[in-house]
Amino acid sequence: MTRNITVVENILNANDRLAQENYARLEAAGVFSINILASPGAGKTSLIEQTLPRLKNKLRVAAIDGDIATSIDSDRAAAAGALAAIQINTGGDCHLDAVMLHGALEKLDLTQFDLLIVENVGNLVCPANFKLGTHKTILVASVPEGDDKPYKYPGTYRGVDVLIINKVDLLPYVNFKMDYFERGVQALNPGVTTFPLSCTTGAGLDAWVNWLIENTQR
Amino acid sequence: MTRNITVVENILNANDRLAQENYARLEAAGVFSINILASPGAGKTSLIEQTLPRLKNKLRVAAIDGDIATSIDSDRAAAAGALAAIQINTGGDCHLDAVMLHGALEKLDLTQFDLLIVENVGNLVCPANFKLGTHKTILVASVPEGDDKPYKYPGTYRGVDVLIINKVDLLPYVNFKMDYFERGVQALNPGVTTFPLSCTTGAGLDAWVNWLIENTQR
Repeated sequence: MTRNITVVENILNANDRLAQENYARLEAAGVFSINILASPGAGKTSLIEQTLPRLKNKLRVAAIDGDIATSIDSDRAAAAGALAAIQINTGGDCHLDAVMLHGALEKLDLTQFDLLIVENVGNLVCPANFKLGTHKTILVASVPEGDDKPYKYPGTYRGVDVLIINKVDLLPYVNFKMDYFERGVQALNPGVTTFPLSCTTGAGLDAWVNWLIENTQR
Repeated sequence: MTRNITVVENILNANDRLAQENYARLEAAGVFSINILASPGAGKTSLIEQTLPRLKNKLRVAAIDGDIATSIDSDRAAAAGALAAIQINTGGDCHLDAVMLHGALEKLDLTQFDLLIVENVGNLVCPANFKLGTHKTILVASVPEGDDKPYKYPGTYRGVDVLIINKVDLLPYVNFKMDYFERGVQALNPGVTTFPLSCTTGAGLDAWVNWLIENTQR
């Protein structure tokens, strides 16, 4: 038993060390970076697709998309205007880690970008345990997932810097009590910056994009 | 490196051995058992809530609900008519494993039940890698998650016995191409038994419930 625990601790420490290295590298290049977490299908890729055209002629953006298989996400990011889009296929792994991001950063000339968007694997549990070295962590929740998610996935909700509530256009059709959801969020992450929006209708996107521009240019 | 791999293999082998033991125990007691997988918020608990009243006076059902925190799910299963409802709090773990199910089975007098419903942690990746020893694995997909999920989570879609497509009442409001989704499913899991339904409207639930009754009484 002791041996197993030691191995796990060593892996985590190695990850954190490399996350610090990634962070230092992004800082040195003047690149602001975000790590986007969500359940499968909450709308990470749609958010990136809607965000990129609104950053055109304002920020030079690179996207790194983590997925278990396929390059669907990086293809969509490239089509939406990312100057570079790199797919990390985790080969079955349920999260990105600092090693994977380190490898992807090697492929980019960071001096060419202002903003790096990292899209994690769709998973509300494991990605929260692996720092990548990005500046901010963004969680995309979505209305049809239900209002109990903060209560059921506290580790993820607790650790994020920004909460996006996507698919608000579906509020009339599902049983989602916004005050119950927000009470759960506030208990875990008081005062977290929150953007309710819809990637389908475009409602609320400007506030999120403005936050992104302000934080990148800071 | 060799040491890490050996440790992981040992854990998996131990899990599979215990899964076989769980299976033998359920078989000996004449209990049919299902393991329900899904993304967070696809509707596992809602499905159980809608299914249990339809089994009343037909099957004696026990529910075991895996969650990272809270007992919301087992409370809902008990309220919906499960004769016994046991919550497994994984304490942060992103999946159930055979050890956890083994522990939960210890708390049940299996001779008192016909059907055991195990609700896994909401996660489209990790649960597929850990056999529990149940008879059938059920995947709950949901329309607002999007039609690309089979392509992006092939490991989970490949390994299941039944696919439920939940929230079909939302089809008019989201961009979900059923034929694209089904092509992805068929490529991974040809001929998989599929039930499109809505836990909100009740549409399609009878076919699923009939499958469950037939397989339990077989």
